[in-house]
Amino acid sequence: MKQKLLPIVLIVLLVSGTCFAQTGQVSVSSKLTGKAHPSPYNLYNAQYPRVEADSRVTFHFNAPDAQKVQVSIANVAYDMIKGDDGVWAYTSEPQDKGYHNYWMIVDGAIVLDPATNAFIGYSHMCNGFEIPDPDGAFYNLKDVPHGNVLIENYFSKITDSWRHIFVYTPPGYENNTATRYPVLYLQHGGGEDERVWIEMGRTNVILDNLIAEGKAKPFIVVMETSAAYKPGEVPPEPFRPRPAETRDEQPAARPLLRFSFDTYKEVMINDLIPYIDGKFRTLSDQPNRAMSGLSMGGMVTRQVTLANLDKFAYIGLFSGGSISMDDVNNTPGFKEKVKLVFVSYGSRELENRRIGFGGDPKANTNALKEAGINTHFYVSPLTAHEWQSWRRSLYEFAPLLFKD
Amino acid sequence: MKQKLLPIVLIVLLVSGTCFAQTGQVSVSSKLTGKAHPSPYNLYNAQYPRVEADSRVTFHFNAPDAQKVQVSIANVAYDMIKGDDGVWAYTSEPQDKGYHNYWMIVDGAIVLDPATNAFIGYSHMCNGFEIPDPDGAFYNLKDVPHGNVLIENYFSKITDSWRHIFVYTPPGYENNTATRYPVLYLQHGGGEDERVWIEMGRTNVILDNLIAEGKAKPFIVVMETSAAYKPGEVPPEPFRPRPAETRDEQPAARPLLRFSFDTYKEVMINDLIPYIDGKFRTLSDQPNRAMSGLSMGGMVTRQVTLANLDKFAYIGLFSGGSISMDDVNNTPGFKEKVKLVFVSYGSRELENRRIGFGGDPKANTNALKEAGINTHFYVSPLTAHEWQSWRRSLYEFAPLLFKD
Repeated sequence: MKQKLLPIVLIVLLVSGTCFAQTGQVSVSSKLTGKAHPSPYNLYNAQYPRVEADSRVTFHFNAPDAQKVQVSIANVAYDMIKGDDGVWAYTSEPQDKGYHNYWMIVDGAIVLDPATNAFIGYSHMCNGFEIPDPDGAFYNLKDVPHGNVLIENYFSKITDSWRHIFVYTPPGYENNTATRYPVLYLQHGGGEDERVWIEMGRTNVILDNLIAEGKAKPFIVVMETSAAYKPGEVPPEPFRPRPAETRDEQPAARPLLRFSFDTYKEVMINDLIPYIDGKFRTLSDQPNRAMSGLSMGGMVTRQVTLANLDKFAYIGLFSGGSISMDDVNNTPGFKEKVKLVFVSYGSRELENRRIGFGGDPKANTNALKEAGINTHFYVSPLTAHEWQSWRRSLYEFAPLLFKD
Repeated sequence: MKQKLLPIVLIVLLVSGTCFAQTGQVSVSSKLTGKAHPSPYNLYNAQYPRVEADSRVTFHFNAPDAQKVQVSIANVAYDMIKGDDGVWAYTSEPQDKGYHNYWMIVDGAIVLDPATNAFIGYSHMCNGFEIPDPDGAFYNLKDVPHGNVLIENYFSKITDSWRHIFVYTPPGYENNTATRYPVLYLQHGGGEDERVWIEMGRTNVILDNLIAEGKAKPFIVVMETSAAYKPGEVPPEPFRPRPAETRDEQPAARPLLRFSFDTYKEVMINDLIPYIDGKFRTLSDQPNRAMSGLSMGGMVTRQVTLANLDKFAYIGLFSGGSISMDDVNNTPGFKEKVKLVFVSYGSRELENRRIGFGGDPKANTNALKEAGINTHFYVSPLTAHEWQSWRRSLYEFAPLLFKD
């Protein structure tokens, strides 16, 4: 906590004068660039984390009895300094633009700061802060027609359980009742879930803005979690990245972990897609269905689409591997059926050779281009394996979808 | 964290095999009553908090270097005991049914457990756990027609900012395009925001079930935050309840804090209601608009409705005061305009005389009844100033709304 919880005598829970509710879709205006300001995810007027004018970030944390307090920014721990008032402080190096996860480490225990909103990542809840981007207007809320984000529960026979999804319907969907729309299935990364493409990704805001400018066709987006287990199926231990020593640390080479998304594949094909096509006014033929994902979501997208090219025409892999000519040659009908392969990375990932699995992504996409496959390769400038790369990837990917 | 974060070498963020995404609308089946089980809000197969067969709750927390660790359950701190493995443990007394907030106190610092989902409350983020209720089927997800929960952003001229709301549309809303629906405005409590009536309150599930049984008329629900400030207006310090010594502690008597919700009143009347009536197929006349709230939301509801009886016909106060004959007599047209006053409390609140402001709620409602005003008084058995009281209150209140 930044402020000590004051022992004020009051009617329990009955009184509260302020409530900066911020559930992910706060204004993250690019106008704040160059001005010190509290991070937009802070609750109840909390002043820290404070984003400095030069994109450094100052953290404060009240822990008078602790022996050691660190703040972990995107999984790199930094020592804080204790002040006479028991409040620990740390000011970071300048941070890259966009959203970043952080958490606190108090006497060795990984914990969250309760005064900042919480987001899923790294297989646990995290805190978040946001660095404004002067070129970030594409994910700012604007006075344009807004689509809807729907929270849905549907029952999966494969998992024998209710599943929680988000669905974006584009502006005009409710009123244009004779119109049917194509669908993008959009996957989260490892240690995340179906929330992230709304809460950090700002998918609805990005698409509202693109559609308003006439740059993207209106389409539906479905956000599910790829965690899916049949009754009796034992989920594997949650994997979490090793804490890094530096921001640019290159992860040790390691053979590709062969995770199976077979159950999720069954859920998608047998339960989710039929549910969506039954409930929403979709165009349900192959040329009108796309799938993409970030990081591990790229693995999921590869596995599901390559096994079901009768159902998917567009493939997007954001910081999540690429498709090689071997993949093409091993997948009957690839050239005829796939209308687009889109591969993207943050520039810092490429610098640090965090290129994921499947070989060099640029070489792979060039090979696909030469083979006449519609392939795009996008590099997000000066961003890492983080959300700004993926917001920008969606912004580049969406205009390429469902073109005749 | 319950499990130590293992220093596994892997491709950062690219891999994760399990992901128990639980964003508030998990199954909280009453069938779990009497069986030990992990709380449904635990992430990634975390085993603690574990709800024991007798409704005690066992907490584990890994903090090998900490000197003192406590778990605070609904704002009462309990000491945990350190094990040889550095994991602290505590098993509580049996807990009341339903949802409860908790957090950790590590060497004096209030922090969250990152392995359990996070919820807003007490003016900061909290963790949550859930005790099954054998009579809780009314808030379980069922195979009945489901309405939609929409996440919306609208621009308020009064606050000169985007505001984030949830809107529930009942089953059939999308297809019955000639039908218009009444609207309930449903307010959160102090230290909370617009999320809580979905995440803890399970409003959509409760209404889906009531409508499926023919017990409630289909209506729209709008969930906003009453935190609203004009440009330049300085929000008051966030108020937080003093940590309590025991579960049944009676808060010290205190004069009613006269919070003003004048700005929110303006937002509702000038921005929110016109937005809702413009975007949704509402019945926008006075007999088809209701307002209710829990705790501080009862204060908000009183202030807004009594000042605008040309706009509201139904008033619900859940653990949030009552309406006296003085209020009736001081509000011109009350008897003619108000179709229902609904007042509710948890039985433990009444036992401990946590009756809020406005005088004795039972006496007040009896006086209104005698004056011929349609008044209901509901007491939730064996629950306190907590969510189970408010889920039940909504369940009792909804069937009384918009009856001809």
